Amino acid sequence: MLPAAPACSFASDNAAGASPEVIAALVAANDGPALAYGDDPWTRRAIDQVRDLVGAPADVLFCWGGTGANIVGLATMLAPWQSVLTVDSAHIVVDECGGPARFTGSTITPVANDEGKLRPAALEPFLHWQGVEHHPQPRVVSISQVTEMGTVYSTDEIAELAEVCHRHDLLLHVDGARIANALVATGSTLAEMVTATGVDVFTFGFTKNGAVFGEAVVHLRPELADHARYVRKQAGQLVSKSRFAAAQLSALLDGDRWLANAAHANAMAQLLAAEAATIPGVEVVRPPQANAVLVRLPWDRLDDLQAWSFFWPWDPADSMARWMTSFATTPDDVATFTAGVRQILAG
Amino acid sequence: MLPAAPACSFASDNAAGASPEVIAALVAANDGPALAYGDDPWTRRAIDQVRDLVGAPADVLFCWGGTGANIVGLATMLAPWQSVLTVDSAHIVVDECGGPARFTGSTITPVANDEGKLRPAALEPFLHWQGVEHHPQPRVVSISQVTEMGTVYSTDEIAELAEVCHRHDLLLHVDGARIANALVATGSTLAEMVTATGVDVFTFGFTKNGAVFGEAVVHLRPELADHARYVRKQAGQLVSKSRFAAAQLSALLDGDRWLANAAHANAMAQLLAAEAATIPGVEVVRPPQANAVLVRLPWDRLDDLQAWSFFWPWDPADSMARWMTSFATTPDDVATFTAGVRQILAG
Amino acid sequence: MLPAAPACSFASDNAAGASPEVIAALVAANDGPALAYGDDPWTRRAIDQVRDLVGAPADVLFCWGGTGANIVGLATMLAPWQSVLTVDSAHIVVDECGGPARFTGSTITPVANDEGKLRPAALEPFLHWQGVEHHPQPRVVSISQVTEMGTVYSTDEIAELAEVCHRHDLLLHVDGARIANALVATGSTLAEMVTATGVDVFTFGFTKNGAVFGEAVVHLRPELADHARYVRKQAGQLVSKSRFAAAQLSALLDGDRWLANAAHANAMAQLLAAEAATIPGVEVVRPPQANAVLVRLPWDRLDDLQAWSFFWPWDPADSMARWMTSFATTPDDVATFTAGVRQILAG
Amino acid sequence: MLPAAPACSFASDNAAGASPEVIAALVAANDGPALAYGDDPWTRRAIDQVRDLVGAPADVLFCWGGTGANIVGLATMLAPWQSVLTVDSAHIVVDECGGPARFTGSTITPVANDEGKLRPAALEPFLHWQGVEHHPQPRVVSISQVTEMGTVYSTDEIAELAEVCHRHDLLLHVDGARIANALVATGSTLAEMVTATGVDVFTFGFTKNGAVFGEAVVHLRPELADHARYVRKQAGQLVSKSRFAAAQLSALLDGDRWLANAAHANAMAQLLAAEAATIPGVEVVRPPQANAVLVRLPWDRLDDLQAWSFFWPWDPADSMARWMTSFATTPDDVATFTAGVRQILAG
Repeated sequence: MLPAAPACSFASDNAAGASPEVIAALVAANDGPALAYGDDPWTRRAIDQVRDLVGAPADVLFCWGGTGANIVGLATMLAPWQSVLTVDSAHIVVDECGGPARFTGSTITPVANDEGKLRPAALEPFLHWQGVEHHPQPRVVSISQVTEMGTVYSTDEIAELAEVCHRHDLLLHVDGARIANALVATGSTLAEMVTATGVDVFTFGFTKNGAVFGEAVVHLRPELADHARYVRKQAGQLVSKSRFAAAQLSALLDGDRWLANAAHANAMAQLLAAEAATIPGVEVVRPPQANAVLVRLPWDRLDDLQAWSFFWPWDPADSMARWMTSFATTPDDVATFTAGVRQILAG
Repeated sequence: MLPAAPACSFASDNAAGASPEVIAALVAANDGPALAYGDDPWTRRAIDQVRDLVGAPADVLFCWGGTGANIVGLATMLAPWQSVLTVDSAHIVVDECGGPARFTGSTITPVANDEGKLRPAALEPFLHWQGVEHHPQPRVVSISQVTEMGTVYSTDEIAELAEVCHRHDLLLHVDGARIANALVATGSTLAEMVTATGVDVFTFGFTKNGAVFGEAVVHLRPELADHARYVRKQAGQLVSKSRFAAAQLSALLDGDRWLANAAHANAMAQLLAAEAATIPGVEVVRPPQANAVLVRLPWDRLDDLQAWSFFWPWDPADSMARWMTSFATTPDDVATFTAGVRQILAG
Repeated sequence: MLPAAPACSFASDNAAGASPEVIAALVAANDGPALAYGDDPWTRRAIDQVRDLVGAPADVLFCWGGTGANIVGLATMLAPWQSVLTVDSAHIVVDECGGPARFTGSTITPVANDEGKLRPAALEPFLHWQGVEHHPQPRVVSISQVTEMGTVYSTDEIAELAEVCHRHDLLLHVDGARIANALVATGSTLAEMVTATGVDVFTFGFTKNGAVFGEAVVHLRPELADHARYVRKQAGQLVSKSRFAAAQLSALLDGDRWLANAAHANAMAQLLAAEAATIPGVEVVRPPQANAVLVRLPWDRLDDLQAWSFFWPWDPADSMARWMTSFATTPDDVATFTAGVRQILAG
Repeated sequence: MLPAAPACSFASDNAAGASPEVIAALVAANDGPALAYGDDPWTRRAIDQVRDLVGAPADVLFCWGGTGANIVGLATMLAPWQSVLTVDSAHIVVDECGGPARFTGSTITPVANDEGKLRPAALEPFLHWQGVEHHPQPRVVSISQVTEMGTVYSTDEIAELAEVCHRHDLLLHVDGARIANALVATGSTLAEMVTATGVDVFTFGFTKNGAVFGEAVVHLRPELADHARYVRKQAGQLVSKSRFAAAQLSALLDGDRWLANAAHANAMAQLLAAEAATIPGVEVVRPPQANAVLVRLPWDRLDDLQAWSFFWPWDPADSMARWMTSFATTPDDVATFTAGVRQILAG
């Protein structure tokens, strides 16, 4: 008989609830009235915390969710006749139902990914489009940190991309839905990863780090954010009771809870990968760098596995699935999950 | 010397925090893992509650905020060559930075409002546009309940609009950001107001009723919602940890907390209007029907008043401003606010 | 028995064919190969002619048609969170099936027209929207010259609008589909009407003046046109064999054929109005200023009239229809048409 | 010393003027007035001719140009949350400045081309996106006939694609800017190529075949065209004096002038390829199938070659350029051009 599925799904880091500190912060923030739309002390404090972390007078805009934050960030950087160069595995290409393309009107040009990463050489074929009226005009390069393949850019890799971008009048955007996991994986500070490297705009994700909701769009070149408030409002991403978004971020930043949460998730991925590697029929695609474990599985057993404990196929053509850990994953969850997978595949 | 401004701003019902029941529900919902994107028991329960209230097998989609919910509702009803007929004071015209127009690509045609309301006669001039390729094709009529002028449609008025709409192959959309306040004001049930009248799609707002965040888009003709999940995702309005939105709505619906909250807000508006009417220089535009009090003020004193306790001008050409009450407004807040206004205008 | 309907329809100035000079120019321009997309001597010559006429180093872009030219002109001036203020009778509001709104993503805000004209006072209510993130941001004022009600702005009226616009950081756009008729009506030169007054961008229409096709978008502040070539291409308005558009415009400008064509059309409108005023049941709304005659008719006879010789209703609520003359209208056409109308109304 | 460059550019088939029959038809069509927007006998006749050719009661819409026709065709087939699968070399990806993406709001998903063609296997990875709200929903497959690499789909290849599409609830769109060249190349009739194979919508291009301007969007499943007139108008593609577009198409179809023009262009490409193959340093990439010759060139000499007689680079990474022939190319042009290239490369 199969064991009970683990309480904690490995389908997504969104399947976790919220960090206890976050819930406490929501309770505390419900302290009488406050002006709406960001004109409140919670919002001001969280913005200051982000500025301290990036070490720059950045523009910080709270948004509801990750797709919205990508839409807002990209829409401030682009005119409709311009284009975004990104990898074919990018969240903005695969997982946002075409939201950024629809809202911006701009072309999203996917190029082949290298283990989820965009390499500078992949930009080459599009550079000669610049200045020719027939072609969409390349203007933004967008990368994800952590990538959708679970890999992590080094700060050197980001700096190199930023340098290539700026040399060709391109801007660098980072979808940082899991940026905390990347910081822990690389041992970098946020300032080292985004400010020193030359990133122009990034999404500072905290939903997957343990919030109920909320992401921030951070413009490291504030002049790009001149009109960003209008874009955010128009995109339906202005948080009316802003204090509740800001208080969550503060709760995660205070005492470096965000880094502890990310470190835990990353460690659970290591544990999961180690255990998974011992299951006959399971191949761990590469050692996990952050909190995603990509595995090759006997694809004819996928339905049984999903029925027991749901997770997402990642590349059916390559029999590849993705297992995610989070701040809330426990060693017991890992043990229960891998035991079930082992038993089903042996069955 | 001026008194301290009231703790509770009269600028917006969004300036209130959250109802205590809502906060308790957030705490309770943080109970271990749950699948993301709505596949969880909290979401299923809240959807069932809404279906019970409307008395129909409606399609219910949780969204982040009011602008987003309007975008999602309208975008499911419209092709880009079609148009929305609405009043020039509508939230989708005035207060959403053009979000619905940008996202749908459709034309939003504002017509003159009658105390905030759309009258059937105002649709006339656009009906002969139907079928002529040169003109945007009228397809949706959108009204706000409560209106932006603080007035409330009777169920008869809504039923008449719905009848006119359907006779002309138009759909009726209701922006119900404050629908609870309208129910209390008219003594109607939700089923009477939206289902029996023939509304096609409405926003079921609960942020202004006392939630931290969250609105639902309700399709009363579910066949219109066939593609609504894609629209929601594309619009950046899919709540990843859906249980936290759903749990809030349930907390408000349980024991009719939502109606009690609305009734309180409406009563505070009555109190505010009565007191305001005694202040020399202040003219209450009309007896409040819900939780908005529109007043005419000596416009040269506006800056002083706003500096003391911020509120929004509503129609500068008519020296009109808007004061909002909420579930959290207290009689003391009303007393403090009106005393300050009286003193400033006397000064 | 009814007379035969006139050969020349009074429905639209587009019902005329092309001026003989235009056809001759098309024949002449088919002279061997020429590079596509505007890199040819015909295009260069026509651009120089327009620059001479406006007396400024304007940017001149040929487009296919009037809707396309309005889309291109407006799209170069607007970001999606900005808005266009225009009258509710404007071609971009009524007669382009929502094209400019869809393509720009921007809000088009119609205000009440005064005999087809936009008055500076109508801008007032929207100026305090500037700088507030909730509202679409007014950026462009668009007027039509000749207006859709057949009236003509004086150069003083345009100069006043331009002054108000620039004082409030707004740009002035002119839909000049019938600008030649306006020049003749006012006795102004093009430089006096658009350059001296301070217009920022205008459509220089020549289809209705006697071309087979073609309009030019003229940026009088060339810095606004930096990206205009991309906009035109993206809008599907780049004329591949550009020489054939340019040659037509040159044929109309050479020897002031365009002004002669417009003068003839205007004169025919005078004749038509004079004759129509004598028909029992027909009321000429106002003395025609250009080539449109607006008339009030016994509305129950509209079908009979249209069946005999088609024309467009203009304001059914006011029993108003529009009769257009063109460069090709003859006094005989006027006589035949008015005789038929007289007979039908008497019948 | 270099010879004079050929009169006829090999940069584009748009560099040719118009077929003499087309010019004669424009002269003849300028025969008095005609109602605008397609309600005229020229338009009716041309539509009937297209219906005869496809052997089906197709919906036929005249548009101005190729980008516009692609925009109109695709926009009638797509909702914004849906996607188009096409090759990375497609005109709608590379050469329309993002117009179809901007206007439709839909995702355009480029896949790797196989000598310019889309292979059914390339659709695989996107089929499991159907029905999952996170992903753009594949709805249309778009191919170009002739492809941008100069290759031609056989009718069997098109039929196979159509079968795969329809099995997966996808529609097949063909950008037929050079469809006449493909018909000649394959010896097929239009009915065999688009109707018998199961194409849903195609662009019937005639600008490159010898018109001054004009393309037709043909819906072979007329129910898809229900709203197409609104789309065309909104896209700025409604030809006001429609007769002049229609008369050109008729002139080309009468006596099969269009096929003769295409046959001549194809023959000139054969001649060009044969001659080019003898030039040291020039490699003809593959035997031309239609009117494009792709060549690999010593890339360091590109500037000299372009300065002498302009043509477009096609794939700089592969040192590949494109030479186009047209109905107007002469054997002398080919001789002059190849002699110049030979001399420059030898120099």
